[in-house]
Amino acid sequence: MANSNIGMVGLAVMGSNLARNMASHGFKVSCWNYTPDLTDKFFNGAAKGNDNLVPFYDLKEFVDSLEKPRRIFMLIMAGSPVDSMIEQLLPLLDEGDIIVDGGNSHYPDTIRRYEYCKEHGINFVGCGVSGGEEGALHGPSLMPGGSKKAWEALKPILQTICAHTDNGEPCCDYVGDSGAGHFVKMVHNGIEYGDMELICETYNLLKNGLGLSNDEMRDIFKEWNEGELNSFLIEITSNILGYKDENGEYVVDTILDKAGQKGTGKWTGIEALDEGVPLTLIVDAVFGRCLSSMKDERVKAAKEYNKKVVKYEGDKAELIENIRRALYVSKIISYAQGYQLFHKATETFGWELNNGGIALMWRGGCIIRSKFLGKIKEAFDKNPNLENLLLDDYFKNIMIEYVPALREVVKAAVDTGIAASSFFSALSYFDGFTSEKLPANMIQAQRDYFGAHTYEVIGKEGHFHTNWTGEGGDISSTAYNR
Amino acid sequence: MANSNIGMVGLAVMGSNLARNMASHGFKVSCWNYTPDLTDKFFNGAAKGNDNLVPFYDLKEFVDSLEKPRRIFMLIMAGSPVDSMIEQLLPLLDEGDIIVDGGNSHYPDTIRRYEYCKEHGINFVGCGVSGGEEGALHGPSLMPGGSKKAWEALKPILQTICAHTDNGEPCCDYVGDSGAGHFVKMVHNGIEYGDMELICETYNLLKNGLGLSNDEMRDIFKEWNEGELNSFLIEITSNILGYKDENGEYVVDTILDKAGQKGTGKWTGIEALDEGVPLTLIVDAVFGRCLSSMKDERVKAAKEYNKKVVKYEGDKAELIENIRRALYVSKIISYAQGYQLFHKATETFGWELNNGGIALMWRGGCIIRSKFLGKIKEAFDKNPNLENLLLDDYFKNIMIEYVPALREVVKAAVDTGIAASSFFSALSYFDGFTSEKLPANMIQAQRDYFGAHTYEVIGKEGHFHTNWTGEGGDISSTAYNR
Repeated sequence: MANSNIGMVGLAVMGSNLARNMASHGFKVSCWNYTPDLTDKFFNGAAKGNDNLVPFYDLKEFVDSLEKPRRIFMLIMAGSPVDSMIEQLLPLLDEGDIIVDGGNSHYPDTIRRYEYCKEHGINFVGCGVSGGEEGALHGPSLMPGGSKKAWEALKPILQTICAHTDNGEPCCDYVGDSGAGHFVKMVHNGIEYGDMELICETYNLLKNGLGLSNDEMRDIFKEWNEGELNSFLIEITSNILGYKDENGEYVVDTILDKAGQKGTGKWTGIEALDEGVPLTLIVDAVFGRCLSSMKDERVKAAKEYNKKVVKYEGDKAELIENIRRALYVSKIISYAQGYQLFHKATETFGWELNNGGIALMWRGGCIIRSKFLGKIKEAFDKNPNLENLLLDDYFKNIMIEYVPALREVVKAAVDTGIAASSFFSALSYFDGFTSEKLPANMIQAQRDYFGAHTYEVIGKEGHFHTNWTGEGGDISSTAYNR
Repeated sequence: MANSNIGMVGLAVMGSNLARNMASHGFKVSCWNYTPDLTDKFFNGAAKGNDNLVPFYDLKEFVDSLEKPRRIFMLIMAGSPVDSMIEQLLPLLDEGDIIVDGGNSHYPDTIRRYEYCKEHGINFVGCGVSGGEEGALHGPSLMPGGSKKAWEALKPILQTICAHTDNGEPCCDYVGDSGAGHFVKMVHNGIEYGDMELICETYNLLKNGLGLSNDEMRDIFKEWNEGELNSFLIEITSNILGYKDENGEYVVDTILDKAGQKGTGKWTGIEALDEGVPLTLIVDAVFGRCLSSMKDERVKAAKEYNKKVVKYEGDKAELIENIRRALYVSKIISYAQGYQLFHKATETFGWELNNGGIALMWRGGCIIRSKFLGKIKEAFDKNPNLENLLLDDYFKNIMIEYVPALREVVKAAVDTGIAASSFFSALSYFDGFTSEKLPANMIQAQRDYFGAHTYEVIGKEGHFHTNWTGEGGDISSTAYNR
């Protein structure tokens, strides 16, 4: 009997929590997992006695239980399992049915799957889901990309189960065609890497530069969370700093300092390199994780160099406030960079990305949710064609007021010997971006000198070549690409 | 009559100069170009009357003119022209013949072509060529990768026409199998981006931070070129600074500050992200070029922010010497990062890259040639298994002596408002690499908090999860990749 509103494929923590979320809003959800163990576990546990959650062990029965057009939400491991699942589903589906991939798939895969499913009359939707297990349960940020028709069919469910802002606006809207949803989710994750790295460097400066205790830092982050830095990541950082295990030991102090990653931050960096968009802060954050994972080498190098962090000599309270300001402007720069990548993607893929809408989708539910995203939304509401966030008046005024603090923090990091690559990145980007003239004329001269690559001249049309050495040919380089 | 020693395909500036180079060493070179115009131009110009250079307009006649096993060196545009040329050559060749691709092909393409040609009994060699048009003519650095058999056949020619060090050592040796030659060339180019960016930032600091004239800077670079910074790029920077056009105007001042790029630096960055090797300085250099090319936005931002460079207040001569030292240590860090990528590639591709040999190949002929590469060679001669250049005694002692200067330069850049992203990168990498403990424990705590990603504990085996909020499941995340 086809009476379920939606089907959930994949019952690990994210899928099961999202299914519970849907059920709690009155949607009837058919549930299926590739192996029966997770289905058993779910229905003997959290799903037990919930009439809106129905277990299936047979895929055909699962599909047949759904009202048409069928809506199937997959939350399974990204990669080949998604392709394999599509192959299993296609023969069981009818034209116009919808498959949603809620995993962290790489957007080129989503574009490919979208086209493939289209050939079979099926609507494929790549939907970014952020918020972790908590978000999945109570309201995640959802970033769906695909056909508008599929969006119309999904909208009533997705805009109900997603997070909402304090004003009740849903943190889910149509992102764009084809792979746009997963593209935006990818950049979301890249930005998340940047935010986390900035917090880590802040933590390092407070802990080792200023010698603050976990409790002192917990209170600082708590206080910051009341102001313009208000965000999920600042909030949990405070909670983490205060969290003790059953022996009264701070858990954060026991954790090994090797950061893991699963690739989405790196994808963002690769995309930026490919598109020629200087996403310096996010890439530095990715490399920061790589460097952290070189633990054995670091231990060896620390011994060889016997390098000690030098305690900060200046006024503590002043540095703490400078760090707060530095963190805020660095975040602004990171988001400005991320939006530059959206701008470029619009050109490359022809997607009409809604910049303000994206800020709103991220405003609640997801890992990077913050008060500050409301300011981004406002900036794009004021000027939908804003070229760069740093040119918006609100952000410009903040930059002018707070960048001097960022300069102080960078210098404090230099003097104490604390690595603060993201703060460094933020400042050098700001100083480069606000420079009418950069020294790249020297690069162009060098390239022309050794490779006859030619250069442009200020105020003149065309490309010019100088025979700098009096030798060399007068033909400019073609075979020799650099 | 098959009596030419080698064939040259592609007679643009690089190919024609390399053919002249071969001819000048007594090798008879058959020459062919896809379009006859360049052949005409070459043989009415530089090749005129040179008995060792023979023009061909028919590809079969060109191939038939070569002694066996045939050696065909291609210097044509990277990309599809290489595939197309291979297709045209294959039917004309015999088993054991050798095709060399001397263009800047991306190494995965070279791996693919190597396998494809192998199926046809042909040896495909991807050979990095560096040195620009001048190098091609007088002795380039050559980085050949492919089968050892092909190398044996090419060695007598390549080790003759390549650059040689002052001691007479050839700057060409066997790099490794398959795509290894183009891989090493790719990293060479990435390092070149880093070197050039560092010089640009130096130029900016000297020019705008200290207000030096072109002549003063020309003399400084000239002096630096006499010491440990001795290198081709420092030398040409001095020449560029002193070069005036026919109107007595400094050419460098007329050049537009938008740096171009043709992709090999970006490939290096993408490779580093993919392999998880923190190649921070090179990527910053690539992004530096991207930022420079955003000229219109920068002009707008400069106007909005009305930002002015602040002249440096301290002792001029002291800062100049500090910049010299900063440049040297930053170079060391950039090369250390590049060699880390080789180390990783050895694992990934199974190539046995000869670290010292690579330094020797780069010692002369190529764009990044420098005295300092001799020190890298020495470091690997002393310890072929050296894990990181920064752990070699010579480099360690330099770092300890010069890093304080780098700190001063970073602070001077901060105070003057001059973007110096590569110097910033170098310092933060150094401070991170020499830290036994980094704040990545906070990242792991956060990831576990919101995504149940688990963490490792200092001194304990296994992976742990904390239920930080008292909610959430006890299953760790699987579907949710971050």
